[in-house]
Amino acid sequence: MLKPLGDRVIIERIEEEETTKSGIVLPDSAKEKPQQGKVVAVGSGRVADNGAKITPEVSEGNKVVFAKYAGTELKHEGNEYLILREDDILAVIG
Amino acid sequence: MLKPLGDRVIIERIEEEETTKSGIVLPDSAKEKPQQGKVVAVGSGRVADNGAKITPEVSEGNKVVFAKYAGTELKHEGNEYLILREDDILAVIG
Amino acid sequence: MLKPLGDRVIIERIEEEETTKSGIVLPDSAKEKPQQGKVVAVGSGRVADNGAKITPEVSEGNKVVFAKYAGTELKHEGNEYLILREDDILAVIG
Amino acid sequence: MLKPLGDRVIIERIEEEETTKSGIVLPDSAKEKPQQGKVVAVGSGRVADNGAKITPEVSEGNKVVFAKYAGTELKHEGNEYLILREDDILAVIG
Amino acid sequence: MLKPLGDRVIIERIEEEETTKSGIVLPDSAKEKPQQGKVVAVGSGRVADNGAKITPEVSEGNKVVFAKYAGTELKHEGNEYLILREDDILAVIG
Amino acid sequence: MLKPLGDRVIIERIEEEETTKSGIVLPDSAKEKPQQGKVVAVGSGRVADNGAKITPEVSEGNKVVFAKYAGTELKHEGNEYLILREDDILAVIG
Amino acid sequence: MLKPLGDRVIIERIEEEETTKSGIVLPDSAKEKPQQGKVVAVGSGRVADNGAKITPEVSEGNKVVFAKYAGTELKHEGNEYLILREDDILAVIG
Repeated sequence: MLKPLGDRVIIERIEEEETTKSGIVLPDSAKEKPQQGKVVAVGSGRVADNGAKITPEVSEGNKVVFAKYAGTELKHEGNEYLILREDDILAVIG
Repeated sequence: MLKPLGDRVIIERIEEEETTKSGIVLPDSAKEKPQQGKVVAVGSGRVADNGAKITPEVSEGNKVVFAKYAGTELKHEGNEYLILREDDILAVIG
Repeated sequence: MLKPLGDRVIIERIEEEETTKSGIVLPDSAKEKPQQGKVVAVGSGRVADNGAKITPEVSEGNKVVFAKYAGTELKHEGNEYLILREDDILAVIG
Repeated sequence: MLKPLGDRVIIERIEEEETTKSGIVLPDSAKEKPQQGKVVAVGSGRVADNGAKITPEVSEGNKVVFAKYAGTELKHEGNEYLILREDDILAVIG
Repeated sequence: MLKPLGDRVIIERIEEEETTKSGIVLPDSAKEKPQQGKVVAVGSGRVADNGAKITPEVSEGNKVVFAKYAGTELKHEGNEYLILREDDILAVIG
Repeated sequence: MLKPLGDRVIIERIEEEETTKSGIVLPDSAKEKPQQGKVVAVGSGRVADNGAKITPEVSEGNKVVFAKYAGTELKHEGNEYLILREDDILAVIG
Repeated sequence: MLKPLGDRVIIERIEEEETTKSGIVLPDSAKEKPQQGKVVAVGSGRVADNGAKITPEVSEGNKVVFAKYAGTELKHEGNEYLILREDDILAVIG
């Protein structure tokens, strides 16, 4: 089990075919890695300048779209993940 | 349904002809994509340095003008959208 | 009607002749666009780091001088405007 | 009458001869414009991060020394002025 | 004994073989130093802008994944350590 | 009399010989201007982000060491001074 | 006696041999100056954004490890010192 720190979120990318079923296609995403995925773990949140904790907006299981080139790739127990900052997530797909 | 996060706003661009009817023309916009559009979804707002939430000024349905090159393009269920920060929106067209 | 957002202000440039009548000439302004204009709309103001709203100093009708290269040009209902940040306005011409 | 905004100050440069009488000579100032002048108008002051107004230290009539290359030049009703930030003023000449 | 200051953390890298047993492999980590290690000492935490101390999320003994190129290498009493900022730690491996 | 503004301090450099008597020699200072001097005037202090005034640590008469290349040179009534920010002063020589 | 200002600390470098006895060797430190030393004087501490004073973590007599290339070198009364910011100190060697 991976627990992200602070304002970080761990995501499992959703591959291209699944992307087309759900309708989300990023114009030039065919060549590149999809910018869509499922949230598998959420950190405790960012700390504001006055030390207050800011609760993350996303939660486990959300399907999200995120900014290109964001985050760090990671393999754990055979699965590939992306660890990125919550601010790199653009929207939740309802 | 797409729900933008934080201070982000989702916009549907308004094409050129509609732009001329409404009167808004950005001097060199003929060649480039119009910087005008309709707000389709608004995030919960930016978080100030002390953790306080800042309510967005724009709301769904507003027609707005936004800064050139702002935001990320996105296709969802066949529609093309632009996700940008509220601060990239210059004005609401009343 | 155009409503600027946040700390933005909408200005109508005052052309060169009018400028000389009022006395304001920016040394090399003959070649460039005058940095003088009339305020036609004012946003609700900047949000400070603690979320407090900062009331703008300028108001509709003020004649102002502003920094060179500031703002974005915009045409609306046949009129040309400049949308800039209040901080780009140097002084009000009383 | 020109009213500077925020933390800006309007200054009338004091020419070289007057400078030597008063004693202030900036080592290489002979070639460049004197960095000395008289304050003709003071803005309402800078706004701190928490929205509080910070009263300016300089006042009308002060003779001051300011940083090289600071500010924007401006002509108004035949007079030449310099509009700069209060932080660009180094000292008041008592 | 080494006591890190402020928001710094001291880590002992976990070598490649151990990495594969635990399942964490960073795609191109074979060539580079593993980005995984064990926390051996934690500083008192970062100081927020208002002077409040922010308690670190990691603690001694945690196995963690950290950003590439982060921190400074150090040898002490024959052991090799890495001193980095807590913000460079991506996740705790539960 | 020169009154520095905000967090600025006015210093009179202490020449090389005096420097050797007092014991302070900056490794390569022989070629460059000494980074040592006497405080002749102190501003009212820096304003913190919340508008609070921060009282300067140095006072008139202190002998101090300051960072290389810091400040602006100034001649006043025949004397040469250096105007710099208090943060550029490294230490007071007791 | 040298009294550092604000968040600055004065350090006497510990030469190489002493370094090996104590066990701290920075991988490529043989060629470069040791990044280890003893604290000889500590400033009053950094001022947070709200004006509050932040008490330094290090104290006189501590043996510390600090970041490469940090600080300014200084000779005083025949001794060589390094003046650096407390944030450049990585850890205290207990």
